[in-house]
Amino acid sequence: MNYISKNSIIGDNFFHGENLIIEDNVKIGKNVSLGHNVVIKKDTIIGDNCIISDNVVLGKEPFKASNSAVTEKRELTPLKIDKLVTIGALTVIYRGAEISDEVFVADLASIREDVKIGIKTIIGKGVTIENKTSIGNFVKIETEAYITALSEIEDYCFIAPEVTFTNDNYLGRTEERKKYFKGPILKKGCRIGANSTLLPGIIIEEDSLIAAGSVVTKNTKKRKIYLGSPAKIFGDVPEEQLLENQNYYKK
Amino acid sequence: MNYISKNSIIGDNFFHGENLIIEDNVKIGKNVSLGHNVVIKKDTIIGDNCIISDNVVLGKEPFKASNSAVTEKRELTPLKIDKLVTIGALTVIYRGAEISDEVFVADLASIREDVKIGIKTIIGKGVTIENKTSIGNFVKIETEAYITALSEIEDYCFIAPEVTFTNDNYLGRTEERKKYFKGPILKKGCRIGANSTLLPGIIIEEDSLIAAGSVVTKNTKKRKIYLGSPAKIFGDVPEEQLLENQNYYKK
Amino acid sequence: MNYISKNSIIGDNFFHGENLIIEDNVKIGKNVSLGHNVVIKKDTIIGDNCIISDNVVLGKEPFKASNSAVTEKRELTPLKIDKLVTIGALTVIYRGAEISDEVFVADLASIREDVKIGIKTIIGKGVTIENKTSIGNFVKIETEAYITALSEIEDYCFIAPEVTFTNDNYLGRTEERKKYFKGPILKKGCRIGANSTLLPGIIIEEDSLIAAGSVVTKNTKKRKIYLGSPAKIFGDVPEEQLLENQNYYKK
Repeated sequence: MNYISKNSIIGDNFFHGENLIIEDNVKIGKNVSLGHNVVIKKDTIIGDNCIISDNVVLGKEPFKASNSAVTEKRELTPLKIDKLVTIGALTVIYRGAEISDEVFVADLASIREDVKIGIKTIIGKGVTIENKTSIGNFVKIETEAYITALSEIEDYCFIAPEVTFTNDNYLGRTEERKKYFKGPILKKGCRIGANSTLLPGIIIEEDSLIAAGSVVTKNTKKRKIYLGSPAKIFGDVPEEQLLENQNYYKK
Repeated sequence: MNYISKNSIIGDNFFHGENLIIEDNVKIGKNVSLGHNVVIKKDTIIGDNCIISDNVVLGKEPFKASNSAVTEKRELTPLKIDKLVTIGALTVIYRGAEISDEVFVADLASIREDVKIGIKTIIGKGVTIENKTSIGNFVKIETEAYITALSEIEDYCFIAPEVTFTNDNYLGRTEERKKYFKGPILKKGCRIGANSTLLPGIIIEEDSLIAAGSVVTKNTKKRKIYLGSPAKIFGDVPEEQLLENQNYYKK
Repeated sequence: MNYISKNSIIGDNFFHGENLIIEDNVKIGKNVSLGHNVVIKKDTIIGDNCIISDNVVLGKEPFKASNSAVTEKRELTPLKIDKLVTIGALTVIYRGAEISDEVFVADLASIREDVKIGIKTIIGKGVTIENKTSIGNFVKIETEAYITALSEIEDYCFIAPEVTFTNDNYLGRTEERKKYFKGPILKKGCRIGANSTLLPGIIIEEDSLIAAGSVVTKNTKKRKIYLGSPAKIFGDVPEEQLLENQNYYKK
């Protein structure tokens, strides 16, 4: 049985499955399709032509763990999902996130509050995007990658499966560490190979490439390939692989 | 409240929980048990004596991300689940997959279209099996392992937790890369240690063993142990660990 | 529509969402808040002031895979969740687990049977806690970490994202291996860096620190930093990072 709050606003040509739950003050655009058991929390805004799959939770309020270091309690803006967005099954997206046009989010992913995701970006299955993170346009973040809080990812970056970002060099010790929390910064078009690990606050420069299984402990140089643990320069990114030489790249 | 389509066919001795959703043209065998909030999409076929846990989604249609490299839009055969299969909570299995007798799938896993899984294989918690992958009989794929698209896994392989497969040496760059997409090929009885990374298209030979945390960049030799990043030969697999010497092995 | 068994006992000031399912003989304390689509299996006990989010499954019975090496079939005690516990969306916790006061479990996590989790411990998003594992007080286990069966984690340990524990040096071969199954043992206040791998049965001593991306193959010494694959001593844990010098530490 469906529960749809009377003060929600729903556009024409609305398709939905069974056991739908729409809380108060939700706004849904035209031509939106929702699966079964979808939960849409209060105030969430969904644009035209979105597809949302089964058992998804949208607009979740963060809970604060009594001893979490980064989450703070305050009023968040509603979750805003723009047009033509696709969201896979069993995914949860928090209040305070903003998802731009044509973003694709796969199954079993989690996107936290204070995250902005740019247009046409792909978020893979089981990916975690922690809070206070910005993600550009045309980014690909693949299956089970972990994007820690306070990360920055610019346009056209590629992050392979099971990559791990970190933001705390002090692993939970000392009070002063809180001043230094910082996720990695990924400059335009850089690429991170599968199952690599990025240390806190490191800068991966434009179009640089990290080979699979590396541990990156220092900032990288543009258009260089890095490999190993700790990652060292291995050579130049081949000309034909540079972002500017891709036919999908728009300046 | 349950929604069961009138043109679905359900065998005797059917047990199910609350909020069940069975779409059109589903066929369910005898002695099947379903948990709460289970979603079974149209045309899905479930054999006798299966157990399916809470909040599972079966028969999901793939969505194509506007810039996905591997997924194509076409008609898929219905999801087919054979006899005595067990499926854990919060798992999603796509239309176009085929799950053989006595397979066990744990919680929070994802199995995509065009995947065949052989008899008595175990798929662990949170495992991802991407599309166009074949998995043999008596395989174990452990928690959170990532099996990329276009992989081949033969009988009796063992894949430890958090292992990462890759299929694109070009990390999303150049058009010609699409000709070379290829996941790893795992020959009969090979074993991959925890949190290891396998590069695209490499062949892990019969009964070879990759130590935990390795990065495998080249094909391996039969019955050899490999270790490190890049993985190098460390020695021979002990006689008593060879597949042919296991009492559970059937030629 | 909600299904609440008549022989469940529910305390005052109960708040819950839609499509709630409470099976027989459940006991829920005062001031408990449940989200939508929550499934609470028979006999589960939930203490006062708990918050449980959408699509959670509590009290799941383990299924035995026909060829699982560790799971055995027997009667388990009911899932017991103490006071002030918070549980995120789409998480599953098994019958036979015991969750102490003020524990925080994030979204999409899985906690198996025969697990005890001490007070104020944090379990991150997508974390897996396998069976027969004990976890102390004030522990942090971060996103997507994998805690294998038969592990021991003492108070104040810190486990960074995507860490992998292992418990079988024989990777599924030989009968005698079953005598040697053993997860890692983490002594008080030790810390494991992101995406590291711990071999079976190793002991990480008090306050020792494993750098990100390491593979730990031997027992460590107290208050030493380890790094690399295989992990070797790199130096001493700085004085100001020792557990005894943290203001949150209570002897």
